[in-house]
Amino acid sequence: MNAPQAPLSAAERTLYHFPLDPFSRQVRLALGEKRLLWQEVIERFWEQRPEFMALNPAGLPPVLVEEPIGGPIIAVCDARAVLDHLEETYPETPLLPSDPAGRAETRRLQAWFDRKFDFEVNGLLLHEKLEKRITGGGSPDMQAIRSGWNALRHHFAYLEHLLDMRDWLAGDRLSLADIAAASHISVLDYFGDAPWREFPATKLWYSKIKSRPSFRSLLQDRWPGIPRSAHYDDLDF
Amino acid sequence: MNAPQAPLSAAERTLYHFPLDPFSRQVRLALGEKRLLWQEVIERFWEQRPEFMALNPAGLPPVLVEEPIGGPIIAVCDARAVLDHLEETYPETPLLPSDPAGRAETRRLQAWFDRKFDFEVNGLLLHEKLEKRITGGGSPDMQAIRSGWNALRHHFAYLEHLLDMRDWLAGDRLSLADIAAASHISVLDYFGDAPWREFPATKLWYSKIKSRPSFRSLLQDRWPGIPRSAHYDDLDF
Repeated sequence: MNAPQAPLSAAERTLYHFPLDPFSRQVRLALGEKRLLWQEVIERFWEQRPEFMALNPAGLPPVLVEEPIGGPIIAVCDARAVLDHLEETYPETPLLPSDPAGRAETRRLQAWFDRKFDFEVNGLLLHEKLEKRITGGGSPDMQAIRSGWNALRHHFAYLEHLLDMRDWLAGDRLSLADIAAASHISVLDYFGDAPWREFPATKLWYSKIKSRPSFRSLLQDRWPGIPRSAHYDDLDF
Repeated sequence: MNAPQAPLSAAERTLYHFPLDPFSRQVRLALGEKRLLWQEVIERFWEQRPEFMALNPAGLPPVLVEEPIGGPIIAVCDARAVLDHLEETYPETPLLPSDPAGRAETRRLQAWFDRKFDFEVNGLLLHEKLEKRITGGGSPDMQAIRSGWNALRHHFAYLEHLLDMRDWLAGDRLSLADIAAASHISVLDYFGDAPWREFPATKLWYSKIKSRPSFRSLLQDRWPGIPRSAHYDDLDF
């Protein structure tokens, strides 16, 4: 709805994001798949910069601001809200199926990764390996890391089960389900935590999404003081 | 899209839910606002009943199943997926504004309650007061409860700030933002934890939503062994 007359230039669309945030990554992938132009502000959100807190009182990335020349400004906070906004405003390259059952399956898997995977895996692994480092929160708790690894294997087994039946997670086309899964998993892969060898169908799926042009900028991400795994940007991992 | 020809009867639409689950409550309110008929299965989800796990491998309510006579069956898992399904399939009583900025604001607040409030408040208070009781998880941790109460006051202050400017949370009409907020808060109110006296605009907003026909069934909820506050079902609280 309300699609602008001319495509927005990069100067008219700004994404506030943090490179190693799985939720920010979903928006970067969706913008790439839809071939939309944008400029970035890398947000060290834990510093609670006043200008950013004014934009999003929840204090979390991603936030997308669209300021078409001569048109209304819109600021969209939260990954799911941004993804829905992009889907409704730029429907040309759909990332949701058109039938109700396909949409429901896609959204079930979005919730799977954004809630269940985020809580059971990233809530442990990224908390110990990433959040503690960037916020000076102390040394990693190895027991929490082992619990996260264990949960991660269960999730990969579930992906393997789905991908034995389907080309993409929610059906025969790439969708927001793949974007959610790949975003959460790609940050773990930065740390070398993904058990690719044990899950060949999942590895094949990830190699397909990793090869897409929309994924390129994610593979260039580095964060000072947080070394990345040797295979992180390797398409033949 | 694909709206059925005739409205579904209660026998054709089943909601699997848990009465004191804030996410299930959002769907019950949305079904009520849209005046849709449904039958219920009350799901003791922590028991992981095999038939329910087959329906939703994540093992969580709510799940909505629509089985129109002679039509395709659809099972929708996860509150947000169900709310989106209802909004797209039964648009007659919209619960999302029609303009992009209004939709973005509504979804920002949905995420605020489903992620931030859920993590900072219900993750403590409902974990200690509800989950531990139904799963036999030991006695409540008073320090966690005090942290939850403290966070709850901050969230009520934010609601008060919004409601000083607006009739409803996302604007001038009831929306999914109100439904999300009221669902999360109403479970706390079952336990008598909502600090109504200190936040008059928030209390007025809650009294408005509490008086709606869609809210009636929530006010009748009781769960064995979990006593509810004296004012829980009182419209003049």
